[in-house]
Amino acid sequence: MTAATNPVAPRIRLGMVGGGQGGFIGAVHRIAARLDDRYILLAGALSSDPQRAQDSGLQLHLAADRIYTDYRTMAMRESTRPDGIEVVSVVTPNHLHFPVAQAFLQAGIHVICDKPLTTSLADALALQTLAGSSDRLFALTHNYSAYPMVRAARAMVADGRLGQLRLVQVEYAQDWLSEPLVGNKQADWRTDPALAGPAGCLADIGSHAAQLAQFVSGMAPLELSADLSSFVAGRRLDDHVQMQLRYANGARGMLWASQVASGEQNGLRLRVYGSQGMLDWRQEQPDQLCLRKPGGAASRLTRGMAQLPAAAQWATRLPAGHPEGYLESFAQLYRDFAEQICARREGRAADPQALLVPTLADGVSGMRFIEAALASHHANAAWVRLET
Amino acid sequence: MTAATNPVAPRIRLGMVGGGQGGFIGAVHRIAARLDDRYILLAGALSSDPQRAQDSGLQLHLAADRIYTDYRTMAMRESTRPDGIEVVSVVTPNHLHFPVAQAFLQAGIHVICDKPLTTSLADALALQTLAGSSDRLFALTHNYSAYPMVRAARAMVADGRLGQLRLVQVEYAQDWLSEPLVGNKQADWRTDPALAGPAGCLADIGSHAAQLAQFVSGMAPLELSADLSSFVAGRRLDDHVQMQLRYANGARGMLWASQVASGEQNGLRLRVYGSQGMLDWRQEQPDQLCLRKPGGAASRLTRGMAQLPAAAQWATRLPAGHPEGYLESFAQLYRDFAEQICARREGRAADPQALLVPTLADGVSGMRFIEAALASHHANAAWVRLET
Amino acid sequence: MTAATNPVAPRIRLGMVGGGQGGFIGAVHRIAARLDDRYILLAGALSSDPQRAQDSGLQLHLAADRIYTDYRTMAMRESTRPDGIEVVSVVTPNHLHFPVAQAFLQAGIHVICDKPLTTSLADALALQTLAGSSDRLFALTHNYSAYPMVRAARAMVADGRLGQLRLVQVEYAQDWLSEPLVGNKQADWRTDPALAGPAGCLADIGSHAAQLAQFVSGMAPLELSADLSSFVAGRRLDDHVQMQLRYANGARGMLWASQVASGEQNGLRLRVYGSQGMLDWRQEQPDQLCLRKPGGAASRLTRGMAQLPAAAQWATRLPAGHPEGYLESFAQLYRDFAEQICARREGRAADPQALLVPTLADGVSGMRFIEAALASHHANAAWVRLET
Amino acid sequence: MTAATNPVAPRIRLGMVGGGQGGFIGAVHRIAARLDDRYILLAGALSSDPQRAQDSGLQLHLAADRIYTDYRTMAMRESTRPDGIEVVSVVTPNHLHFPVAQAFLQAGIHVICDKPLTTSLADALALQTLAGSSDRLFALTHNYSAYPMVRAARAMVADGRLGQLRLVQVEYAQDWLSEPLVGNKQADWRTDPALAGPAGCLADIGSHAAQLAQFVSGMAPLELSADLSSFVAGRRLDDHVQMQLRYANGARGMLWASQVASGEQNGLRLRVYGSQGMLDWRQEQPDQLCLRKPGGAASRLTRGMAQLPAAAQWATRLPAGHPEGYLESFAQLYRDFAEQICARREGRAADPQALLVPTLADGVSGMRFIEAALASHHANAAWVRLET
Repeated sequence: MTAATNPVAPRIRLGMVGGGQGGFIGAVHRIAARLDDRYILLAGALSSDPQRAQDSGLQLHLAADRIYTDYRTMAMRESTRPDGIEVVSVVTPNHLHFPVAQAFLQAGIHVICDKPLTTSLADALALQTLAGSSDRLFALTHNYSAYPMVRAARAMVADGRLGQLRLVQVEYAQDWLSEPLVGNKQADWRTDPALAGPAGCLADIGSHAAQLAQFVSGMAPLELSADLSSFVAGRRLDDHVQMQLRYANGARGMLWASQVASGEQNGLRLRVYGSQGMLDWRQEQPDQLCLRKPGGAASRLTRGMAQLPAAAQWATRLPAGHPEGYLESFAQLYRDFAEQICARREGRAADPQALLVPTLADGVSGMRFIEAALASHHANAAWVRLET
Repeated sequence: MTAATNPVAPRIRLGMVGGGQGGFIGAVHRIAARLDDRYILLAGALSSDPQRAQDSGLQLHLAADRIYTDYRTMAMRESTRPDGIEVVSVVTPNHLHFPVAQAFLQAGIHVICDKPLTTSLADALALQTLAGSSDRLFALTHNYSAYPMVRAARAMVADGRLGQLRLVQVEYAQDWLSEPLVGNKQADWRTDPALAGPAGCLADIGSHAAQLAQFVSGMAPLELSADLSSFVAGRRLDDHVQMQLRYANGARGMLWASQVASGEQNGLRLRVYGSQGMLDWRQEQPDQLCLRKPGGAASRLTRGMAQLPAAAQWATRLPAGHPEGYLESFAQLYRDFAEQICARREGRAADPQALLVPTLADGVSGMRFIEAALASHHANAAWVRLET
Repeated sequence: MTAATNPVAPRIRLGMVGGGQGGFIGAVHRIAARLDDRYILLAGALSSDPQRAQDSGLQLHLAADRIYTDYRTMAMRESTRPDGIEVVSVVTPNHLHFPVAQAFLQAGIHVICDKPLTTSLADALALQTLAGSSDRLFALTHNYSAYPMVRAARAMVADGRLGQLRLVQVEYAQDWLSEPLVGNKQADWRTDPALAGPAGCLADIGSHAAQLAQFVSGMAPLELSADLSSFVAGRRLDDHVQMQLRYANGARGMLWASQVASGEQNGLRLRVYGSQGMLDWRQEQPDQLCLRKPGGAASRLTRGMAQLPAAAQWATRLPAGHPEGYLESFAQLYRDFAEQICARREGRAADPQALLVPTLADGVSGMRFIEAALASHHANAAWVRLET
Repeated sequence: MTAATNPVAPRIRLGMVGGGQGGFIGAVHRIAARLDDRYILLAGALSSDPQRAQDSGLQLHLAADRIYTDYRTMAMRESTRPDGIEVVSVVTPNHLHFPVAQAFLQAGIHVICDKPLTTSLADALALQTLAGSSDRLFALTHNYSAYPMVRAARAMVADGRLGQLRLVQVEYAQDWLSEPLVGNKQADWRTDPALAGPAGCLADIGSHAAQLAQFVSGMAPLELSADLSSFVAGRRLDDHVQMQLRYANGARGMLWASQVASGEQNGLRLRVYGSQGMLDWRQEQPDQLCLRKPGGAASRLTRGMAQLPAAAQWATRLPAGHPEGYLESFAQLYRDFAEQICARREGRAADPQALLVPTLADGVSGMRFIEAALASHHANAAWVRLET
């Protein structure tokens, strides 16, 4: 457990947009914010439904005057209060990420935004431009890359432990959309182009797979060939995507993501092969990382082991054998972002370990990936080059 | 995610004894208390070293007048403040559990106490008597029995899914005391009889193994035959314990716990066999529970599955495939105990699901087990009968 | 253990072409032939090197006059002896499969041939024509489809246990060609187009992956898009292949095979997903088959369980928990083919369970797959339709 | 694949007592004898039922005059034929091991005997005396110690890789006797004291567990405390046994074996812990061996890896990733014993690697273990010292 920041710095004042009663990811963000005790939630526009916004705010012990029903009002008022929020978490459906993030950045408030960044590359680039002209910080919650063993994998690849990279195999298999699921709040917006954007499974979990592969391998694909499917009758967005990847150094890759892979829960797995060995990580057993060298014993590394790279130690709370999980991965993003915010407050450089939080650049990269995959799909899986 | 309590009940006012800087379990208790946002930490006697107590309190944002250097003063003052703490967490070395718990119970404050309850059966019985004459609540943090899949196992056994129980196999293997580790704060007190009591590994993790086995099987052993060892030269307490168990219904059992099992991290595992099947749970992969029937396929049940017993659903925060871990198991005890405290506040019965928190009776049972094991050991592993 | 054939039928007289000292697969075939005691090896042209042919024959206890240095002579002489061989095993490098199989079929001798069938689709079709005009039997040793749990998987898919098939994921990862390996007998011929044919990894193990997927799913791909690579400098054939598949019913698939996947041994794995569940089989733990249903427990089925399909029981020698392996999978092909040969001898129909041995049709299908993959690769991974 | 013996030595002439139609272990022995092609089965007294003996012999292609209905006649006649058998396999129920082995040793024929050696220590000692006064060889088929990775484990322990041994944990869990199973041939004799001897599960599989532990650890227990149970009503022999062990160097151990452990198939597992690490081997995945060092990564070693001890290479037929299993473990004993027999034929010393076949000394040790366990059990699990 490492903490570079001032140990008695006051907690960071946090607001939230989205995340009212009945939501999923909002509650995850709140737990993540509490876990390491660096934030205090003080304001929210938790729902577009005024009654739900009110009820949700009371349940979270917000003061009455800081429960908003409109994110624009919230951005304006909070930015002018002396005790206004310093950072906002955006946990709405995808189509609101852009306007909400824009409003708070314009109000001078740091932003933590759920993924995917936006519903179009153009919006993503616009946000990037906006943020570039302000001094506000931006975090994109690709939480899977915050697991300690993923950070260990990244450090080991960067360190040359695998030699020259040759193959990237990433998959993200779920089955919860195997059936139409009409009336399920989580399913409804994800399968509605007006709320989710033009990509379904591709944007929802394909984006995680792509970000994870890029985070660990340190390589963005040069070109891709993608084939999308909608297996459930009547579904308007893709529920399965698969693609081939080519990298600038000649490496090859495959990515598939599915929400109709019957029997799978949250099967995100990454394998990276190089000339000198491979790494294998599975989200469902996140405390483990398997390293295999040609002809050698398979080594199972465990979070908490002393020999791991510093980047993994930094993100570890508990000794080896005491499982950490999904909430801790989210909390790590919050903890690292707290360090960035406090460093900004205190006029110092943040600890370099705290800079692994995905940023707007990652969000732009993700949207570029999504749009390239859609373009390839519409050209019968022709190769599409990703600009950089 | 289930919450039976009043959703806008104010947070429970919490104090802590022990848990200053450099400690391990205190930080775990604090995260557990924060995770579900049912508590607010307001007071502490965090260390017997005044400076460390002060520094630790400031770091935790405690008000200056609620940072104590003496738990007796804290109990007295907090019990008389109108905004005094409602409950205290006792996270000291073992030898202080008894006097601290006693002081706060006498002051009319609920107690959450780390295990083992005390360092002698006599002290445990005295606490039980004291609590019996008050109306204060008591929780003992055997966190392993709060994992959702352990609660699932318990419900399945109680439901007769395994038929008549025949065999209980429980083991708890660690290796962190394989070497003398002199100067390691965690090791020092655990191997010092003055601080840890008369049992080492037996009390530290053997007690967890015994509680887990009893919690799931629903059976306390009738007699045991125990053999304790100290493998590291100069160690004054046992670092390895193994024993055979006999149950009233004719079932047999084996238990071993070791802190010198080289290569093991936190290897707590329970297997329960009955005439109709078996259950297998491993702490290092706590979201899984394996059920096997004679001649049948091995079924791997996963936390979050809809078909699990209600007791498991109750203790679940995340969907299947999104790993929960050790911190959530502790948080579950805090959340359940919050429900008990709020029910008491509100003059209603607590939700029955919240009553699985280990109590003083479990602590007494644990001390009885420890003393029987010590007695057997001193009689060359003769069978010793456990009173009930 | 099931045996439909006459229990005291004399052993089948077997010859072998290839498989001299220093070879690998020849020894495997001989063990397979001995394991169930249905064959007796009596003749061989074990090497093109006369001295090695002689030494190898003596070591195998062959009579001097049945040790040949030329397969054509062997085919001629054995076909005219009254005690001549009934069947020949062809275990040479790929380029000889065609002429050897042709010679023995023309001599009226049954053929067991290692995979891939030939080095071109044209040769494969020619063999099929030749065999069609004779009454000789032909077995192609795609051994992986003879594992009991693979046969179980096939029966379960055919039975509709997975519903409508949606996804096929097959991979075959090895690392033994990660380095140039010049001078290694096994490597040398496999990377020489004159001996191996125009495809390297694709033909050597990609063909196994494709056959396995087709055997279990019951579906041949309609079109494929393939990308081949040669990662090791100077290598003249592909050492890595990956592709996307489309099936007539709309299902999608991915296949990759690599001999440069550092850290992998013999990682053949098949996953088949349908609307009602999925099956997962890994060659390195062949006695297990995992069945998962949406939302349900993962079921691990084990070879030897009473509830398995008859096709799995048929191919099982040992009770559950007593591991069988690679040699038994080969032996199963030999045992089943023995049943076919004895049925032919005895003028009766073979037991239907013995008909799962891959045939010339499978070999033709495999060559069609290889040529389509090569064609796609040469067209920058364009979709290529497989004729049927 | 290593073979020290003369490559063109004639096959060893083998006979068999027991193993007629319907048996299990006889068929296993025959496959084991064929697998490496070092034996030819020429004679048998395959059943005490004359018709079954006859039918079984014909099915195995035995000559009519070498199908016996009486093992004494067989021993006499075969010992006087010029082409008589050189070695006999004894695969009868336990109570016949002694007289059959005795008869063939007296006839000057080498013996391969299934375990346990006899039904009493006295008989075992008598056999040892008899063999000591002859020059005949004796093999006891504790096949589990012939798995390559078990031999690797033994070599690694002997090499000091684990440091000073501290703990031995061995278990052997099956469930096939969970129910009475009356009328099942395999069950009937194993639960009948007249055929199986005075111990049930203890002799049948407890003896395997004890031998495995001793083989790998290189230590025999100094004293034991055993508790036997019969869980199935009406069963006359133990179906579950558990015990504690103490070793001369202060190490501790636990052993349990059960045939009523519902849901287990053939769950033999050994863990050995020393001051510098541990080894973990499971029979159901026999090609793997896990090595863990304190604080270090878990290493999974695989049969076929180049870095394994020579003793493992010696017992390996296939490359890594190509699973071997139970039949190969038996075959290894046959292959090693063939080397011993051929060395004897040729008047040379056998290859030292071939000397790991269990012998009469192991059989005597096993019977001493069984009788000590029975004695302890009858004294309420008091400690019983094992003579050496």
